[in-house]
Amino acid sequence: MHKCAAETIGTFWLTFAGCGSAVIAAGFPDVGIGLLGVSLAFGLTVLTMAYAIGHISGCHLNPAVTVGLWAGGRFPANCIGPYVASQVVGAVIAAATLFAIAVGSPMFDLAKGFAANGYGAHSPGQYSLISGFVAEVVLTMMFLFIIMGSTHGKAPVGFAPIAIGLGLTLIHLVGIPITNTSVNPARSTGPALFVGGWALAQLWMFWIAPLIGGALGGILYRWLSEEPSAQVTGIAPATPAE
Amino acid sequence: MHKCAAETIGTFWLTFAGCGSAVIAAGFPDVGIGLLGVSLAFGLTVLTMAYAIGHISGCHLNPAVTVGLWAGGRFPANCIGPYVASQVVGAVIAAATLFAIAVGSPMFDLAKGFAANGYGAHSPGQYSLISGFVAEVVLTMMFLFIIMGSTHGKAPVGFAPIAIGLGLTLIHLVGIPITNTSVNPARSTGPALFVGGWALAQLWMFWIAPLIGGALGGILYRWLSEEPSAQVTGIAPATPAE
Amino acid sequence: MHKCAAETIGTFWLTFAGCGSAVIAAGFPDVGIGLLGVSLAFGLTVLTMAYAIGHISGCHLNPAVTVGLWAGGRFPANCIGPYVASQVVGAVIAAATLFAIAVGSPMFDLAKGFAANGYGAHSPGQYSLISGFVAEVVLTMMFLFIIMGSTHGKAPVGFAPIAIGLGLTLIHLVGIPITNTSVNPARSTGPALFVGGWALAQLWMFWIAPLIGGALGGILYRWLSEEPSAQVTGIAPATPAE
Amino acid sequence: MHKCAAETIGTFWLTFAGCGSAVIAAGFPDVGIGLLGVSLAFGLTVLTMAYAIGHISGCHLNPAVTVGLWAGGRFPANCIGPYVASQVVGAVIAAATLFAIAVGSPMFDLAKGFAANGYGAHSPGQYSLISGFVAEVVLTMMFLFIIMGSTHGKAPVGFAPIAIGLGLTLIHLVGIPITNTSVNPARSTGPALFVGGWALAQLWMFWIAPLIGGALGGILYRWLSEEPSAQVTGIAPATPAE
Repeated sequence: MHKCAAETIGTFWLTFAGCGSAVIAAGFPDVGIGLLGVSLAFGLTVLTMAYAIGHISGCHLNPAVTVGLWAGGRFPANCIGPYVASQVVGAVIAAATLFAIAVGSPMFDLAKGFAANGYGAHSPGQYSLISGFVAEVVLTMMFLFIIMGSTHGKAPVGFAPIAIGLGLTLIHLVGIPITNTSVNPARSTGPALFVGGWALAQLWMFWIAPLIGGALGGILYRWLSEEPSAQVTGIAPATPAE
Repeated sequence: MHKCAAETIGTFWLTFAGCGSAVIAAGFPDVGIGLLGVSLAFGLTVLTMAYAIGHISGCHLNPAVTVGLWAGGRFPANCIGPYVASQVVGAVIAAATLFAIAVGSPMFDLAKGFAANGYGAHSPGQYSLISGFVAEVVLTMMFLFIIMGSTHGKAPVGFAPIAIGLGLTLIHLVGIPITNTSVNPARSTGPALFVGGWALAQLWMFWIAPLIGGALGGILYRWLSEEPSAQVTGIAPATPAE
Repeated sequence: MHKCAAETIGTFWLTFAGCGSAVIAAGFPDVGIGLLGVSLAFGLTVLTMAYAIGHISGCHLNPAVTVGLWAGGRFPANCIGPYVASQVVGAVIAAATLFAIAVGSPMFDLAKGFAANGYGAHSPGQYSLISGFVAEVVLTMMFLFIIMGSTHGKAPVGFAPIAIGLGLTLIHLVGIPITNTSVNPARSTGPALFVGGWALAQLWMFWIAPLIGGALGGILYRWLSEEPSAQVTGIAPATPAE
Repeated sequence: MHKCAAETIGTFWLTFAGCGSAVIAAGFPDVGIGLLGVSLAFGLTVLTMAYAIGHISGCHLNPAVTVGLWAGGRFPANCIGPYVASQVVGAVIAAATLFAIAVGSPMFDLAKGFAANGYGAHSPGQYSLISGFVAEVVLTMMFLFIIMGSTHGKAPVGFAPIAIGLGLTLIHLVGIPITNTSVNPARSTGPALFVGGWALAQLWMFWIAPLIGGALGGILYRWLSEEPSAQVTGIAPATPAE
């Protein structure tokens, strides 16, 4: 199934390059890229993949996107399982690859979090569970809203990857201090497996909140645009695919 | 009225994510996104929404844009009221949501300003009322000039959201030290309600100056392009909507 | 002449927002936008204006662009004078407006340079006259090369403003430490009139080097693409204007 | 051969402006552009050139791209030699030009590395040879994957330079602390000739790893998309060239 392979490769890239920028470059002395650089990196993983594989799989790269598009009437229920499984596999391979590279530096310290998501004591800014949950729901909801809208048949053709990718950048510009920003259960799962302990104990929230938010976003946009039925599949930039 | 709902959701996003990046991430220790990250965030709220709902409501998200497009001959007078009301509602909901999230962190301090706009003693760089007023008028005027021009029938189709969104980023790159950058009365109103006191006392300027600037921009472009009559409505990226 | 008015407004925006970001926001304490933010600002002035007025005047905003396009066979000699004059007027108005705003802050200090261009002791990084001259020639040459190429009939339609605007960002990412980056005699002239003294004494270089570089870039691309004759005028994004 | 001239000019720009931003502006006191600015600069060299000369040569600018596109079935074997030679010439001229400018400042110090690539003791973050090798292979593989995908016949027309250029930015956001980021043997060769010693001794890796990664990326995408035969040549944005 080439669509599933595309989702695996794409989610590998999202997790490897997004989390990689955080682990390797964010806090580099004097010239580090900071949270702004990490935000840009996450967004560009989606922008680049949406142009590269949007015409193959729709470029979801995210269980919350897959579920949200289903809730929005744009994706068939029976494909959710294979897509989500492929995404998680890609994210786990990415975390393993990133770990293999990162351990080659004396600057690496797994205890710094390895870009895992967290709340409370493990939130970068010590945000509470409630704050984290609300933020993940709202940010994922708006992410799906942007995805649904920019891939709508009346939106300009070909620009959706820019809107969606830079939308993810924007979401990170707001959310990193709160939860390190998930809005993507697959991206959260990869690093959590390597960090273990608290990261696995808090992982439930980064599945539940994004999935709820994604579904809400899909439903909200579907209501707003009065869509009668399915149109386009996922992020695919205006191709008549599927 | 789905257009008004779109304006409310869009202005929610502009205020939530724009002001949210400032309140939550701008001054984060060591790796904060700074004024550059906040500028990018505000611009991306408009870029993402313009692709998502431009084909529904024209994606104004800003009373100064609505009034400026009316002055420029692109928007009917009888729709100004509902649009502006919807925008203000969205901005107030955004400020409330942002407040609910931000209070969950020990780092939060409402006295830091909650991204409200100000002049004089409440300007980030202590800019005078006169400087702030001139800056808001000039920046909003040029914002409308960009909007009018990039949605003109002779401009390339589909690119207006990029020009307009990144134009708002540019405006923030210049204006944040002066007034925290409004150019948008709705965005100013939301945080001011939570800050109260000085923020409410200075709010008048962030209605008057942007509205004057917006109208001037609409009129200036209309004169420059010798437009005979109405063409496109708002930021809508080259769709024949309305 | 509406084309000249468009050039004046556009060059006003380039100088006001580009130099404004440098004077007002670059060195703001703790959260300043730095040279990266200034580079982005200059590029976005051109990106936004190219979409807004590209279809009116071609959006040169720069005597070196006007002369370079003439050297490249894309612009008539008899229009160079009016275009250059309009650009200089816009830049001077911009410097005056920026000065009026900036003096309203206790942080303002004209002695910091007001974004004027310089070499030797007045180069931000103390680069010599020779280094500055070579850099200005090479950077302007490549700027014109990008403009000629991205507006070529075989380049994708509508994307030229992105390539050209972000090209100017790139040029600033390299050049600010050398000369504060001119590549544009009009942009150099505005602030120099307010700084006076050394800035006026060194202004000659920021006319000569960019004009030489611009002409070389126009000629280089013309040779490379084997263009037989004039095609498109300036930055105008693929419109059949003029 | 105008295609080779275009590759030389383009690779000159990539190396001059990319490495130039690192040498001149990255560590500038207080307002330096940092690794984020350097990442943006490298990406924009490709974005700007892809729009300027994509329709002439395909805008490879990189031996790993040329070899990767050959492995992906998009480029003829007999043109690899001339393309690679032209690219190396451009990179060497760029390093010489950059050196000539940089020595004009008292801040310049060749011992800081002149943007050469390195591993082990010469990696910015002291990453081991193994980490560097793996990173270069993976990053170049994904770079080619993005190039192959975004220039595919089913991808939206005209957007490939954005995906590819910002893809290179993303790659630098991850990779600079590891090896200073090569993914391009020509870009590595230019500065190494000026640094000499360790840079030349380690140069082998920045030829081998990117070439392996590039070939893997071309093959991976070809498999994924089930391409029967050659389609488009290189980064050329959707022109029917060659």
